[in-house]
Amino acid sequence: MSDNVVPIKRSQSSAPSLAPILSLTATPMNAVNAIILDRMQSEIPLIPALAGHLIAGGGKRMRPMLTLAGAELVGYQGSRHHKLAASVEFIHTATLLHDDVVDGSETRRGKEAANIVFGNPATVLVGDFLFSRAFELMVEDGSLKVLKILSSASAIIAQGEVDQLTAQRKIETSEERYLHIIGAKTAALFAAASRIAAVVAECDEAQEAALDAYGRNLGVAFQLVDDAIDYDSDAAEMGKDRGDDFREGKMTLPVILAYARGNAEERRFWEEAIAGFRTDDEDLAHAVKLIRQHDCVSATRERARHYAQRACDALSIFPDGRAKAAMVEAAQFAVARGY
Amino acid sequence: MSDNVVPIKRSQSSAPSLAPILSLTATPMNAVNAIILDRMQSEIPLIPALAGHLIAGGGKRMRPMLTLAGAELVGYQGSRHHKLAASVEFIHTATLLHDDVVDGSETRRGKEAANIVFGNPATVLVGDFLFSRAFELMVEDGSLKVLKILSSASAIIAQGEVDQLTAQRKIETSEERYLHIIGAKTAALFAAASRIAAVVAECDEAQEAALDAYGRNLGVAFQLVDDAIDYDSDAAEMGKDRGDDFREGKMTLPVILAYARGNAEERRFWEEAIAGFRTDDEDLAHAVKLIRQHDCVSATRERARHYAQRACDALSIFPDGRAKAAMVEAAQFAVARGY
Repeated sequence: MSDNVVPIKRSQSSAPSLAPILSLTATPMNAVNAIILDRMQSEIPLIPALAGHLIAGGGKRMRPMLTLAGAELVGYQGSRHHKLAASVEFIHTATLLHDDVVDGSETRRGKEAANIVFGNPATVLVGDFLFSRAFELMVEDGSLKVLKILSSASAIIAQGEVDQLTAQRKIETSEERYLHIIGAKTAALFAAASRIAAVVAECDEAQEAALDAYGRNLGVAFQLVDDAIDYDSDAAEMGKDRGDDFREGKMTLPVILAYARGNAEERRFWEEAIAGFRTDDEDLAHAVKLIRQHDCVSATRERARHYAQRACDALSIFPDGRAKAAMVEAAQFAVARGY
Repeated sequence: MSDNVVPIKRSQSSAPSLAPILSLTATPMNAVNAIILDRMQSEIPLIPALAGHLIAGGGKRMRPMLTLAGAELVGYQGSRHHKLAASVEFIHTATLLHDDVVDGSETRRGKEAANIVFGNPATVLVGDFLFSRAFELMVEDGSLKVLKILSSASAIIAQGEVDQLTAQRKIETSEERYLHIIGAKTAALFAAASRIAAVVAECDEAQEAALDAYGRNLGVAFQLVDDAIDYDSDAAEMGKDRGDDFREGKMTLPVILAYARGNAEERRFWEEAIAGFRTDDEDLAHAVKLIRQHDCVSATRERARHYAQRACDALSIFPDGRAKAAMVEAAQFAVARGY
C-alpha cells in the first residue's frame, strides 16, 4: 500500500520537519483515525458532537504517531497498536477538554474551545467519557502490561496537572519543579505511547526502556518549546493563544529564567505579573521584552535541544533505517518549530 | 474477629435498616477504608486534601458495600475484593467531584462541596486522579474480566451524565428516558459493584447475572427515592439540598408525573419552572404542593418498591442466610429511607 498524502508539506529548505514521520505512519494512522471516529460515537448525540469538535479540529496526533512510529522501528507486524494508539489519543483528548475547563480557555487549535461552544458541564463529562473509552479499548486489547503503563501514566498526568495548578501564581517555582511538572503532565504520556509499541511487539526490556526514554525526552522538549513560543515575539503563529501563560500566572521556564536573571526592579515586575496584577497588553509586551533581553526563549530552546538530543541518543540501540531517521527528525523538529 | 461498632443505630421499630448489611461488611470495610486512605495519597498535598474532604466526609460507602456483601453471599474466602471495592468507591468519588462542578453544587453530604472549598479546576483534576487510581487498583488485581465490567460501567455512567445534561430543562422528558438516564448514571455502577463479587469468587454466569440484577435494580430504587425526597415535604433531612433538582430544571420522576397528571394551568407552571423562570421559594413550595396533590412522591416510591422487589427476587438463587437477609433488608431500606 502506498503512503497517503501527507498534510504538512516538507519545507524546501533543510529545516527539520514532521514530514518523514507523518509519511512513515500515514497508513496505520488511517486505521487509528477510523477507530477514533468509530469509538467516539454514542447514542447521546452531544458526545460525538463535542468530541468531534476537538478531534476533527486537527492536532498533530503526536502521541498515537509515537506508538505507530515505535512499532515501525521495532518491525512489529500486527495491528494491536492501532487500538492502543487510539486509546492514547482519547486519554490526551480527555485531558485537553479538562484543561480547557480548568484554564477557562477561549480557543484551542485555532478555533473556539469546546468549553466555549458546549459549556463547562458537557466538556467535563465528555472528557470523562473519552477517558472511560480509552480504558475500554485497552481492555479489548487485553494486555495487563499495557493497562498498567497507561493507567499509571494517567494518574501521573493528573498529578502533574494538579501540581501545575498549585504552582500557578507562585513566583518562587524553581526550574526543577517546573521540569517535574512537565515530566508528569506532558512527558509521561509521550513515554507511555512510545513504550507500548515495544510491549505489543514483545521487545526486550532494554528496547522498551529505550522507546520510553525517546518519548519522555521528546515530550519534555515539546513542552519546553511550547512554553518558549508563548513568549517568542519572532515565533510563527502556533494556534495557541499568545500570552495565555502570562495572564494565567503559569510559571514556565522563560519566566523562571527571566526572574532568576532579572534585577530587583524586574523581579518586582514579575512578582506583580505572576500574582495577577499586570495582565494588560503593555505588561505582556514588557514581559516579552525582558525575556528577550535575558535570552530566555533561546535558553529554553537550548534546554529543549538537550532533551531532544537525549531522545535521539536513546534510539541508538535500534538499527538505522527509515523509521529511526523519521523519529530523529521529529525530535529535531520539536526543537526547531515555531521559528 | 468481632464485628465493629455499626455507625447507624438500628431503629427500635420494625423499619428496615442498613444495620444488618453494615454489620455484615464491617470488618472487610475497614480493609477497604485503609486502601482508600492509602491510595488517595500523592506527593501533591492538594490531592489528599481535596479527596479527603469528600471521602472523609462520610457517605454510606453503598457501592463498595455491595461488593463486600456480594462476596459474603457467595462465600468468597479471599481478599481481592477489598482493592476492587476501593476502586469502585474511587470511581464513584470521581463522578461526585465532577457532578459538583457540573451542577455548581454548594453542599455535599451536609458540608461545603469540594468545588466551593478548592475551586472547580482542582476538583476536576483530582476527580481525574481518582479515576486513574481506580484503574491502577484494578490493574493491580489483574482480572481483565473485572476491568471490562468496570471500564464499561464508567463509560455508561459518563454517557448517562451527558444524557441527563441534555434532558435538563426539557419538560418533554419521558419516564422511559428518565429510567434510561438513571439506569446509566446510577444503576450501572451498583450493578458492576455487585457483579464483580461473583467474578472474584469465580461463580457461574447465573450467579454473576443475579448479583448484577440485584445491584442494578437496587440502584434504580435508590435513585428514585433520592429524587422523591427532593420534593418530599415530609422527608427527614438527607444532606441533599432540598429543591436543588427543581432549581436546576432536572426532569426527575416526581416532576414528570406531576406534569403528566396536571391540568393546563399546572402544566404551564411546570413549563416555566423547568425552563428556569420560576425558582423562588414560593415556586418550590407550589411545586411541592402540586406534586403532593397528584401523589407523585408516593408514586415515585411505588416505582422504587417495584425495583427493590426485583432486586430481592434476583437473590432467590442464593441460599438463605445472614448475607441474603442483610441484602434484602438493604433493598427495603432503599425504599423506606427518608420517611
